[in-house]
Amino acid sequence: MSYSAGERIELQRQRILKAAKRCFIAHGFHAAAISDIAAEAGISQGLIYRYFENKRAIILAIIEMQLVENRENLDRLQASTDFVAALGQAYGLWAKGDPELWHAGLHGEIAAESLRDPIVADALRRSEQQNRQALMAWFHRRDAEMGRRTSDEDAQLRAALMSCIVEGLAIRAVREPDLPPEILRAMLERMMPLVLGD
Amino acid sequence: MSYSAGERIELQRQRILKAAKRCFIAHGFHAAAISDIAAEAGISQGLIYRYFENKRAIILAIIEMQLVENRENLDRLQASTDFVAALGQAYGLWAKGDPELWHAGLHGEIAAESLRDPIVADALRRSEQQNRQALMAWFHRRDAEMGRRTSDEDAQLRAALMSCIVEGLAIRAVREPDLPPEILRAMLERMMPLVLGD
Repeated sequence: MSYSAGERIELQRQRILKAAKRCFIAHGFHAAAISDIAAEAGISQGLIYRYFENKRAIILAIIEMQLVENRENLDRLQASTDFVAALGQAYGLWAKGDPELWHAGLHGEIAAESLRDPIVADALRRSEQQNRQALMAWFHRRDAEMGRRTSDEDAQLRAALMSCIVEGLAIRAVREPDLPPEILRAMLERMMPLVLGD
Repeated sequence: MSYSAGERIELQRQRILKAAKRCFIAHGFHAAAISDIAAEAGISQGLIYRYFENKRAIILAIIEMQLVENRENLDRLQASTDFVAALGQAYGLWAKGDPELWHAGLHGEIAAESLRDPIVADALRRSEQQNRQALMAWFHRRDAEMGRRTSDEDAQLRAALMSCIVEGLAIRAVREPDLPPEILRAMLERMMPLVLGD
């Protein structure tokens, strides 16, 4: 299998970002040095600087990567997806700090950095707007499939509720990994109708 | 005004913890050195070690301090507290990263650390259990005042919902400080009845 120059660049970029995520998770954003990220990715420090000017550029790229992943996750969802079951399952993975999922530590680092750096805050705000739009479009599609109509205001409200609930659960999973499954299920059964409008 | 020896020790301890919170918020848990905390508190490094063996001991004390603050906040709440208004107001303070409140960055650091260090994870779990008990007791009191009865299961479910929603909102405030107030209000109006059972 051979890659074009453009594909090779993109693969290298992804490799650096994944290594950076692991380093930020392991050491924290400020304690992780570019040299740690280079060692983790198995490439030279000089090469990293050809892709990213500094750690801020890396965190901005991680925010963007998260946005793309969110969109891909949304594309996989069906109108019939059982959210109570799916989020119940996600809870166990969040609790373990799976770096492939929304990671409470990494997102805490990003939140902390956005409170220190207005450029990171701006990027986060813009990515949330795009997230919101993607979620709203998904609610509109789902409702249309179910023969219902949703106003834009209602879709916006439900999208914000969804983000609040999912992130609240992801934090809960880390703070309280042994929450009894029947309580978690009952929580989801109460909250999801607000989001889905079912 | 004069203090007893015990009071002086407790005041010094509080001063170190507050300085540590500010340092963790400013630099991150791993990048903040004991020497930074000493400088921030305006005391010697040696003195800090007389109170706290290491940074882990400081983070355990911060978790405990948060528990005490949560209880004090609960004690101030009335059955008639308007949660929609109160949480709407908190949103603006969370968005600014007010270090006196639940701080998304600091709690992100604590979550990240608990995923690295099982002793921190244990402390967090135990503090969540106590938090849960305090919240459940508050729901029982509130319901009794309103002439209602709540089962323990229901109180437990509502306490977990409350934590999930409040933390989800605190994250949202940082990621999306300009969420339109009418959307925030509508979110709270939909979610709070699940928590309060009103």
